[in-house]
Amino acid sequence: MGEFDLIARYFTRAPRHAVLGVGDDCALLQPQPGMQWAVSSDMLVDGRHFLSTTPPAHLGHKALAVNLSDLAACGAKPVAFTLALALPQIDEAWLKGFSQGLWALADEHGCELVGGDTTQGPLNICITVFGEVPPGDAMLRQHAQAGDDIYVSGTVGDARLALEVFRGTLSLDAPHFEAARIRMEQPTPRVALGQALRGVANAAIDISDGLVGDLGHILQRSKLGAVLTTDWVADSAAISPALQTLPLNRRLDMALAGGDDYELLFTAAPDQADAVQDAANASGVSVTCIGRITANAGLQVLDAHGVAMSRRFASFDHFAR
Amino acid sequence: MGEFDLIARYFTRAPRHAVLGVGDDCALLQPQPGMQWAVSSDMLVDGRHFLSTTPPAHLGHKALAVNLSDLAACGAKPVAFTLALALPQIDEAWLKGFSQGLWALADEHGCELVGGDTTQGPLNICITVFGEVPPGDAMLRQHAQAGDDIYVSGTVGDARLALEVFRGTLSLDAPHFEAARIRMEQPTPRVALGQALRGVANAAIDISDGLVGDLGHILQRSKLGAVLTTDWVADSAAISPALQTLPLNRRLDMALAGGDDYELLFTAAPDQADAVQDAANASGVSVTCIGRITANAGLQVLDAHGVAMSRRFASFDHFAR
Repeated sequence: MGEFDLIARYFTRAPRHAVLGVGDDCALLQPQPGMQWAVSSDMLVDGRHFLSTTPPAHLGHKALAVNLSDLAACGAKPVAFTLALALPQIDEAWLKGFSQGLWALADEHGCELVGGDTTQGPLNICITVFGEVPPGDAMLRQHAQAGDDIYVSGTVGDARLALEVFRGTLSLDAPHFEAARIRMEQPTPRVALGQALRGVANAAIDISDGLVGDLGHILQRSKLGAVLTTDWVADSAAISPALQTLPLNRRLDMALAGGDDYELLFTAAPDQADAVQDAANASGVSVTCIGRITANAGLQVLDAHGVAMSRRFASFDHFAR
Repeated sequence: MGEFDLIARYFTRAPRHAVLGVGDDCALLQPQPGMQWAVSSDMLVDGRHFLSTTPPAHLGHKALAVNLSDLAACGAKPVAFTLALALPQIDEAWLKGFSQGLWALADEHGCELVGGDTTQGPLNICITVFGEVPPGDAMLRQHAQAGDDIYVSGTVGDARLALEVFRGTLSLDAPHFEAARIRMEQPTPRVALGQALRGVANAAIDISDGLVGDLGHILQRSKLGAVLTTDWVADSAAISPALQTLPLNRRLDMALAGGDDYELLFTAAPDQADAVQDAANASGVSVTCIGRITANAGLQVLDAHGVAMSRRFASFDHFAR
């Protein structure tokens, strides 16, 4: 099987919304009148963003999920994506699994594969995703306001928990490991929540590098500070039963600096608290208030007694480890 | 230097047309009312799309050029692009050169870098480009008509010529080698010609895999055939002085199956011949008529005496060699 057969067999479907889909020099899309386009691109590399043991269907899911998560973070509605793929060789079982995982998540979000590229090389998956958002409605990192509450969606720390089990630094019983592993290999992009938060939240980001590090991006762009509580790490909807099996100090590391969560971290004015809960309920995902934005720069992390902690929670940097 | 410093130093500028540029989860773009969006994505892998000897500035140029060439092939006007980059390590001299080559070509075409991704891994460059085209004006592979003349822009075969010198299968004097090498490492996307051909040409494609192979894509999508002449390989504007130093049989291979040309191959009705020349003149690039589309399927390549040749001209397939 050659390059063109590969594309035809695994990555081509009749276009639905696109004017022109896979198979020409360009895809053609007709934007909805008056909407802005949100664009994001993420590249996944073997051994860095996923383990070689990851089932290909999970990898197909994850490659698109991390991109949809970026759309979610700015409140955009997914429309279409391109896929560029470097493969060491043509492995039909791998391609079948990968494309199934990819299509399943794409269909769930009505996000159409419209083009891309396939070549031989060390395994590399690059997806670029396009979404629509009404002008002025996008939630940006720079829009946090002093006094805003800080929220996190779903649960954090599970992906890192699973990674540490794979690395052999921790052990978990089978059901908890399986639950954590799903969170690592098949993260859930909070697309519905992102759209429901438009007009409610001020700033938002998706947690890929770690909660504290990603909050840092909001603070830097908004030129503000924050006080982060940690009592919610002891007991809240943001900590999964799997993570609850760990002692508190290890939980803290995973929840605050684990990374790969693809949950939304967002800020909203205190008088929007009910609207935040309504958005969460409508989207079927929990949200947990974990701190407050401050006018003073810097980030203070408080322990369960409200005392500032001296330990640091490192963020993920692809060139630092 | 970490990932975020790298992006800030080499790949961030204030947005010009974009509503929001590099630095958030998504970039935001405001499409021109009524325009369609053309989208294309190309991935370049070390040793496959470029030699490790390629100067980084040339590589920055080429990575964007091959994408702009796709926009040119459908007649779209470049607007913006994303860049995803996997790097083995942070090499500031490389980054400086690469970004300079990239910015120079981006500025030439008013095409804005709006976002992307940077990670560690085997060198891989994935660019996704966006352009605008009025609805119905895009030149598509499927729009060739029986009786259309077939044209090629610029010169073909030079990139392959340079590659063969690098491989040691050929030798050239220094000025001819330098001319061919520039064509290989810094191809010129025919962006102005592509837009000038809107409403003039029917079908178009850019030549990346080889002239005959890429013509095959037009024929397949248009469900038509073609007769390709070769007398122009002996003497025409489509053959560079460098390629003219080779005997005719080797020229034929490079011109018809060399690949990596990033010239436009397009078809137009015979009564559009003057309009085609006007478009070429206005864009400052030559065009050469090299054959005709036929209602009968199949591709006949005629020798200089008008006799059908039996030899085949293989197209480039990333998994076939």
